[in-house]
Amino acid sequence: MEEPSGILIKGGKVVNEDCSAISDVYIENGKIVEVGLNLQIPKRVRVIDATDKLVIPGGIDTHTHMELAFMGTRAVDDFHIGTKAALAGGTTMILDFVIPQKGKSLLEAHDRWRETADPKVCCDYSLHVAVTWWSDKVKKEMETLAREKGVNSFKMFMAYKDVFMLQDSELYAAFAQCKEVGAIAQVHAENGDLIAEGAKKMLSMGITGPEGHELCRPEEVEAEATQRAITIAHAVNCPLYVVHVMSKSAAKVVSNARRDGRVVFGEPIAAGLGTDGTHYWHKDWAHAAGFVMGPPLRPDPSTPGYLMDLLANDDLSVTGTDNCTFSVCQKALGKDDFTKIPNGVNGVEDRMSVIWEKGVHSGKMDENRFVAVTSSNAAKIFNFYPQKGRIAKNSDADVVIWDPRMTRKISAKTHHQAVDYNIFEGMECHGVPFITISRGKVVYEDGQLKVSPGHGQFIHRKPFSEFVYKRIKQREQVRKPTAVTRKPYEGKVISV
Amino acid sequence: MEEPSGILIKGGKVVNEDCSAISDVYIENGKIVEVGLNLQIPKRVRVIDATDKLVIPGGIDTHTHMELAFMGTRAVDDFHIGTKAALAGGTTMILDFVIPQKGKSLLEAHDRWRETADPKVCCDYSLHVAVTWWSDKVKKEMETLAREKGVNSFKMFMAYKDVFMLQDSELYAAFAQCKEVGAIAQVHAENGDLIAEGAKKMLSMGITGPEGHELCRPEEVEAEATQRAITIAHAVNCPLYVVHVMSKSAAKVVSNARRDGRVVFGEPIAAGLGTDGTHYWHKDWAHAAGFVMGPPLRPDPSTPGYLMDLLANDDLSVTGTDNCTFSVCQKALGKDDFTKIPNGVNGVEDRMSVIWEKGVHSGKMDENRFVAVTSSNAAKIFNFYPQKGRIAKNSDADVVIWDPRMTRKISAKTHHQAVDYNIFEGMECHGVPFITISRGKVVYEDGQLKVSPGHGQFIHRKPFSEFVYKRIKQREQVRKPTAVTRKPYEGKVISV
Amino acid sequence: MEEPSGILIKGGKVVNEDCSAISDVYIENGKIVEVGLNLQIPKRVRVIDATDKLVIPGGIDTHTHMELAFMGTRAVDDFHIGTKAALAGGTTMILDFVIPQKGKSLLEAHDRWRETADPKVCCDYSLHVAVTWWSDKVKKEMETLAREKGVNSFKMFMAYKDVFMLQDSELYAAFAQCKEVGAIAQVHAENGDLIAEGAKKMLSMGITGPEGHELCRPEEVEAEATQRAITIAHAVNCPLYVVHVMSKSAAKVVSNARRDGRVVFGEPIAAGLGTDGTHYWHKDWAHAAGFVMGPPLRPDPSTPGYLMDLLANDDLSVTGTDNCTFSVCQKALGKDDFTKIPNGVNGVEDRMSVIWEKGVHSGKMDENRFVAVTSSNAAKIFNFYPQKGRIAKNSDADVVIWDPRMTRKISAKTHHQAVDYNIFEGMECHGVPFITISRGKVVYEDGQLKVSPGHGQFIHRKPFSEFVYKRIKQREQVRKPTAVTRKPYEGKVISV
Amino acid sequence: MEEPSGILIKGGKVVNEDCSAISDVYIENGKIVEVGLNLQIPKRVRVIDATDKLVIPGGIDTHTHMELAFMGTRAVDDFHIGTKAALAGGTTMILDFVIPQKGKSLLEAHDRWRETADPKVCCDYSLHVAVTWWSDKVKKEMETLAREKGVNSFKMFMAYKDVFMLQDSELYAAFAQCKEVGAIAQVHAENGDLIAEGAKKMLSMGITGPEGHELCRPEEVEAEATQRAITIAHAVNCPLYVVHVMSKSAAKVVSNARRDGRVVFGEPIAAGLGTDGTHYWHKDWAHAAGFVMGPPLRPDPSTPGYLMDLLANDDLSVTGTDNCTFSVCQKALGKDDFTKIPNGVNGVEDRMSVIWEKGVHSGKMDENRFVAVTSSNAAKIFNFYPQKGRIAKNSDADVVIWDPRMTRKISAKTHHQAVDYNIFEGMECHGVPFITISRGKVVYEDGQLKVSPGHGQFIHRKPFSEFVYKRIKQREQVRKPTAVTRKPYEGKVISV
Repeated sequence: MEEPSGILIKGGKVVNEDCSAISDVYIENGKIVEVGLNLQIPKRVRVIDATDKLVIPGGIDTHTHMELAFMGTRAVDDFHIGTKAALAGGTTMILDFVIPQKGKSLLEAHDRWRETADPKVCCDYSLHVAVTWWSDKVKKEMETLAREKGVNSFKMFMAYKDVFMLQDSELYAAFAQCKEVGAIAQVHAENGDLIAEGAKKMLSMGITGPEGHELCRPEEVEAEATQRAITIAHAVNCPLYVVHVMSKSAAKVVSNARRDGRVVFGEPIAAGLGTDGTHYWHKDWAHAAGFVMGPPLRPDPSTPGYLMDLLANDDLSVTGTDNCTFSVCQKALGKDDFTKIPNGVNGVEDRMSVIWEKGVHSGKMDENRFVAVTSSNAAKIFNFYPQKGRIAKNSDADVVIWDPRMTRKISAKTHHQAVDYNIFEGMECHGVPFITISRGKVVYEDGQLKVSPGHGQFIHRKPFSEFVYKRIKQREQVRKPTAVTRKPYEGKVISV
Repeated sequence: MEEPSGILIKGGKVVNEDCSAISDVYIENGKIVEVGLNLQIPKRVRVIDATDKLVIPGGIDTHTHMELAFMGTRAVDDFHIGTKAALAGGTTMILDFVIPQKGKSLLEAHDRWRETADPKVCCDYSLHVAVTWWSDKVKKEMETLAREKGVNSFKMFMAYKDVFMLQDSELYAAFAQCKEVGAIAQVHAENGDLIAEGAKKMLSMGITGPEGHELCRPEEVEAEATQRAITIAHAVNCPLYVVHVMSKSAAKVVSNARRDGRVVFGEPIAAGLGTDGTHYWHKDWAHAAGFVMGPPLRPDPSTPGYLMDLLANDDLSVTGTDNCTFSVCQKALGKDDFTKIPNGVNGVEDRMSVIWEKGVHSGKMDENRFVAVTSSNAAKIFNFYPQKGRIAKNSDADVVIWDPRMTRKISAKTHHQAVDYNIFEGMECHGVPFITISRGKVVYEDGQLKVSPGHGQFIHRKPFSEFVYKRIKQREQVRKPTAVTRKPYEGKVISV
Repeated sequence: MEEPSGILIKGGKVVNEDCSAISDVYIENGKIVEVGLNLQIPKRVRVIDATDKLVIPGGIDTHTHMELAFMGTRAVDDFHIGTKAALAGGTTMILDFVIPQKGKSLLEAHDRWRETADPKVCCDYSLHVAVTWWSDKVKKEMETLAREKGVNSFKMFMAYKDVFMLQDSELYAAFAQCKEVGAIAQVHAENGDLIAEGAKKMLSMGITGPEGHELCRPEEVEAEATQRAITIAHAVNCPLYVVHVMSKSAAKVVSNARRDGRVVFGEPIAAGLGTDGTHYWHKDWAHAAGFVMGPPLRPDPSTPGYLMDLLANDDLSVTGTDNCTFSVCQKALGKDDFTKIPNGVNGVEDRMSVIWEKGVHSGKMDENRFVAVTSSNAAKIFNFYPQKGRIAKNSDADVVIWDPRMTRKISAKTHHQAVDYNIFEGMECHGVPFITISRGKVVYEDGQLKVSPGHGQFIHRKPFSEFVYKRIKQREQVRKPTAVTRKPYEGKVISV
Repeated sequence: MEEPSGILIKGGKVVNEDCSAISDVYIENGKIVEVGLNLQIPKRVRVIDATDKLVIPGGIDTHTHMELAFMGTRAVDDFHIGTKAALAGGTTMILDFVIPQKGKSLLEAHDRWRETADPKVCCDYSLHVAVTWWSDKVKKEMETLAREKGVNSFKMFMAYKDVFMLQDSELYAAFAQCKEVGAIAQVHAENGDLIAEGAKKMLSMGITGPEGHELCRPEEVEAEATQRAITIAHAVNCPLYVVHVMSKSAAKVVSNARRDGRVVFGEPIAAGLGTDGTHYWHKDWAHAAGFVMGPPLRPDPSTPGYLMDLLANDDLSVTGTDNCTFSVCQKALGKDDFTKIPNGVNGVEDRMSVIWEKGVHSGKMDENRFVAVTSSNAAKIFNFYPQKGRIAKNSDADVVIWDPRMTRKISAKTHHQAVDYNIFEGMECHGVPFITISRGKVVYEDGQLKVSPGHGQFIHRKPFSEFVYKRIKQREQVRKPTAVTRKPYEGKVISV
């Protein structure tokens, strides 16, 4: 007998960012058809009892690097395994990065990445595109990507000197073009010059282990670049999105800018919210190397709690993972030189539970804010709200039935990712996905994944997201500077 | 022919706090029945064309004092005129204050205020109750009010020494009781001792005019009390709501506390967002006296813009007016002594337009944030969301059709309030209510009010608002301090 | 043969707050007679070789409680042992507190304390007087103390409810009187109401050990009171001195107030700079109880470093110790109830070394700032500079020859105080006094004390310290508010 | 009859940064010979009665550009007129800048500037050298200048793109070399890329007047660069000196860095303390153009008061002027394009009076802090304290007898500078120099200047100023990062 096409989730507490209510949810053909009590439902549907559970929008991971070729090797979680793991953790959409080499076409890189991902993805996805160099061609391609390819976000690197890094004048140009085409500018904010110098210095002092990774790029290097990016973006009235905010000082910069009215969004990641940089000083090299990522986790142990406070308070806006996983034998490329350790950590599977544990269970945020920071805000910023990020009539049926009472202990032994360690190893989490529904289909249930490569679809995003651009446009009109009207100067002019 | 009972608002842009969308809205029997496109509607309905207009939840004024007897006279806007004026400005609900005298029953004061208001109100309303003294009886009555009378907010005064002011230990007790009964504690945050001394000092220096009102209670007096209230509330894990945040420094205190995770909400008011305290230095006494209120408006002209920035950024949460209007001849009671000028300004009618002008038209916030700060957040905090504060199926049909292109110039000559001047006199506002619907009935249209006294209803509010209390309760569980387990001390003890 | 009366310190580096220079110092009759190179010196003098050593002004401990009767017992370090210990540590003057009981004469308490101290003190001293209640008599006695008794500083308690605590209106009056008589107002800044409630709460939760001491008065209780005191002092234009700044948040309050131009000084103490409140959670009761003082040390381990940063940067100004020592058997009075543990810790002997270690050796401040915060600033604030606090011609010969290379390990086994434990037990310090000279006499040398009770003298301090009052007086003149000149209001006045 | 060589200043109040005292001062041969009461003085001396006046160290202007060739013309105040004007205003030493062109020898530029200045200067002077490009030769010349030429400060530009501006990696190298040779790094902190883009944008919008100068480089452009410079300097543990801090936000950056322990000094200038950027909007072009300098004065009128608060509080350290004067006919080069207006304002003559008026007369700082910020701190930072910056035995006899009661009104009609307008025109100042003594000679008296070109001398400054470098060196030793000791990783390594 065929599986019924409809799903009725009964008796759960539907949680949206604005409020929660006990309600049934009826799903058909990949969409949420109705939300309410006493719904009129066809007979042949699957009924899921969600009593005492929460019904939340599927998680959206704003920042992944599946199967990225980087630093001489390739991330082990590909689009297939990575998105399956995402579903197991309650995430039903990822935003991955297209990173063209300097001098290469953005469009071609984009198309190639689409080709790579499309047949593999098990959940919906979309793509940010990195701007790693500058030319008229790049500028033109940004327009094409925004108008035709569904890309409304471009990332610029202030780090990775000589590889991806842009100069300030190039940042200015790229931000100006983002504004022109209605995209949001994203930055990896670290001062690349200082990192390059710092790394040389550490190696010259004989510091070759993972601790050198943090010592050569302490948090002020991140805070500085964050301040700079915000200043440049403001100069062109361009909205800004700071990826992976990793330190208290950088977070404070974002937060203060928002108080001043800047249209800027900060994205902390699961790693930064759930663990810290003391691990770089771990006596076991492999353990320490496992946490190497850029910007680094911070040795100040009060960092995760601080970032969570700001996330709870909407000083920071959304959460990603920067999931970019290299197994220990890959990390070992840098066993004698921390600058050769491939940068990256896991997170795509565990993000939802880590944030629930550190954010909701701790009492820092409530379940509604949890939804806002794990899905709704991402959908708003990147312009597919309320298609996703909300449990509502007509929204996509990306839904998670979340059990706030169940607990699980995170471990590489049990996770679904390809990487052979887990930076959250041993963490006890109180909130766990009970069932994950992607595109109207139950894909994760009873600890089992039931999904095939290609189940997911590319999500085409339009430019000029209202959430981001309404204020930008209004300011463009009302804050234009004007010249003072004066009589011409008619006095003497020195001759040169 | 009878007026059709249903209303169909067609073609407008429905604006909720999370997003906007072109949508029709169908209203019947005081409720929103459906929101969407291509709705199936009975034939005999009134159709309102809202093309190019916004359809927003009716405004909620969190802070009014209709017909308050104060300082030897009585506010001229009573529940009838005041609520009519509210409707004309796009506000469809007010929260007024019951203020018992020291030593008097809270319950009786509450019941009397209900009796006063019920027959007069033209829009829905609810009541906060002030705790102006402390005793076991007061404590008990707070419980009764919360459990049986629909009151989930109590205001404590830190100012008005010997009249309404509580001591710190009384604040502690009152806050503790709020927490116990599931109410939110509200404070008027100014240091009453300093005001009393300051007033004496100013008078002794021969400063008797309205400028003395601000000079005797400068903004640090407000900031200090705000800090104190937050500290005391935190000591009992009680949510706090700071009424009329009037200064940059007080707003900063609220804002910083929120960053630290405190459950605290700040309420700026229309007066503080739309004008400033330089008026106290106006050469015309009557003009200057018209702005006298407590806490005072601030002479720093950057104050309104700063408060609006914080309101836009969710450092401040909701907006009221402290509408408490005395005509010039009443203000004149203090013509020779500023301490005798009845405190209070207008606002209930103009709040929506002033916030639109200074907030949205200026580009500081978008239309969605406008809805959040004029209605949704109030409804969440005071626990009647989404009954009000949202355009959604099943919500109350308190709806405003807002014309963002129309302008009006505020003036006492044209306003609907009883008071004979207007602190916003001459302000040009870009956003104007086109039609106001209260309880499913068009009550304001073409500049005409069509409503009778008693049209409004008392809104019963339940305690333990989820929006406020979810974090409070969770913290109560997970943050309880525990004793260190030790072996008993067995050494010598000095004998006393 | 008689000891020569003159002392020539040769070849040392003379360190003052503004700079250092290799210079000789000649001392005679209790005074510094000359500072310079190639001095003309009588033959029969004692010559001390100070090559490679620093010659610094003797330390001034701004805050001690010798032999204080408190909480049912008496501090074990009396004026004799306490001041000897001070000399051994490089401190040549203390400022102790007269604390009259509520309702008792300040003058009598002062005179009695003089009588107690005079015959015992081994170094110079002076007295602050506490104002523990308010009346016209108190006000009058403050004037007498300031004019006739050499007291230019009065301390007010915001804690110790029902024992020493003043209400805000009393603080206002006391601060106003300080300003009137030219004294500096000192405050113990903690919210006494919150402490009282907090203590009850902890005990009710079964938390009876020393950790309860901190839990019932967390740092925001200190920060709140600090903010309040600054606000009140500013209202009367009175200079303020916050004793024992113990937390990051309170220090930030002081620091921000100074940026805003407030005449306020913060005094961190040796305990707060050298150790922290994690000890309250120590498994050994006696160990934990040894650190009990008010305000408590803070469990945030970054506190001491933060306070030292602010001290280095002149956000905080001077250093004391709050030395008030109770032996373990006295602390044991509170073995079953932390509220009965006598409050107080050691510090008078170790302050100089602790600050050198944590401040100078760490690179946070230089030797000149060390002198400023251990003596010069105290002498300026309390109005006996440059009599003390500077190595200069005509200054008192209170001089320490400091060896920055020598180290010592602090221990109760070797210290000179009477108390039987030491909160700095085991701390290795790099800077050590080599020789201490008090009133022109070598009193500590080769680890030996050579001094008799009564060697020290009372230092009479005049009111209106220039360092403190110059700005106060100028502001009094130029910042007086003035009335707006207006035509009288001649309109209608409502009749009441 | 020959003028007596000695000068006795009798009865004045000698003001040093640490305290003031009535004292006589005896001067001979260009030095202060004795300070005290009842001095033994030769008979034939000139006696100056300083009763009721202050005797202060001569002012030191840390920042001048005499006769600078810039933007196609040359500053009108040359070393002769400029230093005479300085003396008339109570300034007895200036520090001017050598600014080599990109690609040109620093040493040669330095020697040429010495040759220019030596025969003209009427007061002592010294030279900072700008590093406008980077190469091994530049690096080597910095060493020579520091070791042999008396230069211990180098300025790097972050603005003036393509003219003087250095890239971040060049800043890093230059700062590292400063640290190596014991100099202090100075920065002109503005983001040059943003200025270049901003200027293009303003012109493209038709904004060609002086207001465009500020609009194209608003204060965040300054704050950003300040943060960046501090970050880079900290990365190499180099002391930093931020010249002309012009905005609240940049000042806050400096101030916060100092709280964090950074060795950084901020220099506000007379223009920024005494006037503001609203003048750029003046209707008269010539008036507006007169205020054009880089970074610009700020339109926020609370800026000067804020900078003075921070200067009073030692958040900012010293004061210069950036005196670089162009007459109106020179300014007129930019009459149609603000980018062509020669940048620069006056100040060298008026600095002392402006700071007294806005700082001391206003009650923000006392006379001692005035001395600190007008001379002592400059002398300490640039390493010629207490040779200058203090009234003390053996110090240089650069002395000003200051009359705090006399007033003068600043005007171009009466000033001694060559420039034909004055940005402080009309300002009434309460403090006025009564007599100026330079190198032991009365050079200004009764409003008359009596001094000849070449009277002043070059002041040779040694590297490794103690005031600046003590902490730097100590940190170098105690804060060196160390490697974690680990067993080598012996697991698998992926093959690439």
